[in-house]
Amino acid sequence: MKFIIKKTILLNHLNYVSRAISTKNIIPVLSGIKFDLTKKGLFLEASDENIIINTLLPKDKIESILEEGKIIIPGKYILEIIRKIPNELINFETDGQKILITTESSEYTLNGMNYEDFPTYNFEFNKEPILINSKIIESIVNQVAFSTSLQESRPILTGINFKLEKDKLEVVATDSYRLSLKTFKLENKGKETYDFVLPKTSLLELVKIIDSKKEIETHIFNNKIIFKFDNILFQSKLLVGTFPNINSLIPTETPIEIKADLDNLYNLIDRTSLLSDSEKNIIQLEINNNELIATCETVQIGKVEERLLIENKTNKNLKISFNAKYMLEALKSFEKKNIMIKFVSEIKQFIIQEENNEELIQLIVPVRTY
Amino acid sequence: MKFIIKKTILLNHLNYVSRAISTKNIIPVLSGIKFDLTKKGLFLEASDENIIINTLLPKDKIESILEEGKIIIPGKYILEIIRKIPNELINFETDGQKILITTESSEYTLNGMNYEDFPTYNFEFNKEPILINSKIIESIVNQVAFSTSLQESRPILTGINFKLEKDKLEVVATDSYRLSLKTFKLENKGKETYDFVLPKTSLLELVKIIDSKKEIETHIFNNKIIFKFDNILFQSKLLVGTFPNINSLIPTETPIEIKADLDNLYNLIDRTSLLSDSEKNIIQLEINNNELIATCETVQIGKVEERLLIENKTNKNLKISFNAKYMLEALKSFEKKNIMIKFVSEIKQFIIQEENNEELIQLIVPVRTY
Repeated sequence: MKFIIKKTILLNHLNYVSRAISTKNIIPVLSGIKFDLTKKGLFLEASDENIIINTLLPKDKIESILEEGKIIIPGKYILEIIRKIPNELINFETDGQKILITTESSEYTLNGMNYEDFPTYNFEFNKEPILINSKIIESIVNQVAFSTSLQESRPILTGINFKLEKDKLEVVATDSYRLSLKTFKLENKGKETYDFVLPKTSLLELVKIIDSKKEIETHIFNNKIIFKFDNILFQSKLLVGTFPNINSLIPTETPIEIKADLDNLYNLIDRTSLLSDSEKNIIQLEINNNELIATCETVQIGKVEERLLIENKTNKNLKISFNAKYMLEALKSFEKKNIMIKFVSEIKQFIIQEENNEELIQLIVPVRTY
Repeated sequence: MKFIIKKTILLNHLNYVSRAISTKNIIPVLSGIKFDLTKKGLFLEASDENIIINTLLPKDKIESILEEGKIIIPGKYILEIIRKIPNELINFETDGQKILITTESSEYTLNGMNYEDFPTYNFEFNKEPILINSKIIESIVNQVAFSTSLQESRPILTGINFKLEKDKLEVVATDSYRLSLKTFKLENKGKETYDFVLPKTSLLELVKIIDSKKEIETHIFNNKIIFKFDNILFQSKLLVGTFPNINSLIPTETPIEIKADLDNLYNLIDRTSLLSDSEKNIIQLEINNNELIATCETVQIGKVEERLLIENKTNKNLKISFNAKYMLEALKSFEKKNIMIKFVSEIKQFIIQEENNEELIQLIVPVRTY
């Protein structure tokens, strides 16, 4: 393998694939990046076994291809070296074992890894891929993903459930104490329906390498998913198991509804939780006519009472307790000034929505304290 | 104690003293801030036993003093509450045990701590304090402090040595592998000479609360030092022990001298050290006529050779090895474009200085590898 390439172009593509480099050293070769120089151009690939990122640097973007070939280069070192080299043009040369990287004033020799040791991943494609805009991916990260479980005891809850039927995409995450649900409209005419669970970690890596305002070709299979955009392939495994059916969880009748200013409510919950037990984070909320009263008492620290004017839409009152951290994360997902909180009773889960917009639902299960 | 105060004014002063709040819970009362409301105004004080910060909020900055008194308030909570309260005016009231903090819409009750449990610190003052400009403090932090030892095995080396004689202030830090020395001119007419060692940690807290361009009244005693500015008193203990005499360490005859571009040299050392053993960080430097060649080889990773044109002032060559991290930190302390490196031999400590400026000396002890 022998070629000359511009620093900025190579660095750009290394940054994409480096997201998949394994940081756990269980399989040493996965700490490397596969360089595969062919007539088409330079394929780069990295994998941590959960995700695989592959990118093609087409031949017209390479200054000069002198000899085709392939090798695995230690990911951490190649990335740092290319990032820090000041020169515009970089020469690569390898005998299959060592990689020689030279510029006008520098000469690096890195130990390579055996090409045969790197797993072979087959990228498959559907005839009719789904197009998902990168803005939808960003929404899911900002408005849904935080509700996934961090505990591995129920692995399926560490993922995000996608349900696609015709042009309707429903995305859900829950850790069984709270839930986030967002519905999107896609421009999809395919007849196939899909129901799969994507690991949250995969989504968080994907969002880092997509540019905004881009349609992403999405190819969905039984146990894996492939996102295709520009010259990048991003493959993730899907989680195995049954995601809880959430239809029965979302209350349809909510006899107690209030309207509040988002920022004021957020700041009030934030201040009230200052005095909460830092593990459980429980605070109390009381709706009393047109006043919302948040309270919290922790014997060792002290107590707090905060008041806010609200619009009591149903003229009913209630007292309820919940985890303030869940409430803060839920409130953060909204953008508009006014939000609605809809309660069933003090022991039933309640939901938060924007006023006149039901695309996004945040649900929180209360804690019994009264 | 009962008073009304503006949020921004109180927060400002709480931020000063909070730097001294103890985060180790050995003496519980030191996690608190002493509030002492007198006719003069509100004194705030916090201490972690190494440093003590005391600030006076004069009575004309307090909206209303209704009743004098004193109490210890848990530092972490009072700081967060005052930071997050949106209201302009805040009421404080205490019965000596609990603190009631109220605004138009909030009411906080915090458990206080006993005033008598808080240590009493006496602030003493010299008749002729030394004036040190805050810019000098900032210089010491940026150009000298990094050379202190992080190891507690020789506690004296975790501090910074100050030597003051007439108008000359000499400041030194060393971990015995490298050394930073800066000389300042003060406007000092006092006849007293001083030689003391200030803990680096104290200096780093001090620099965070001083505004730039301010003369700081410095009162030096046997075992403590007091910095006085605005309405703030910052007291630190001094380290006990003898700081090494460094006069014999700085080479006076340096037969090999080169001049190099600061940025180019920094980046070259940075790149070369990429392939170094991350614990020892050793790289080699060769001066060969007008070329500087940096090399590094680590068997498991690979090797690198970097070249840079320099001005060889003495037309002598040399090979030398050292810790790249020390070199990078030393180079970062300079501001001008050109720096001089002055060598005695490959086994003797070498020094780095700005061209035509001897106020700042960085010294590094080489490692024997050749």
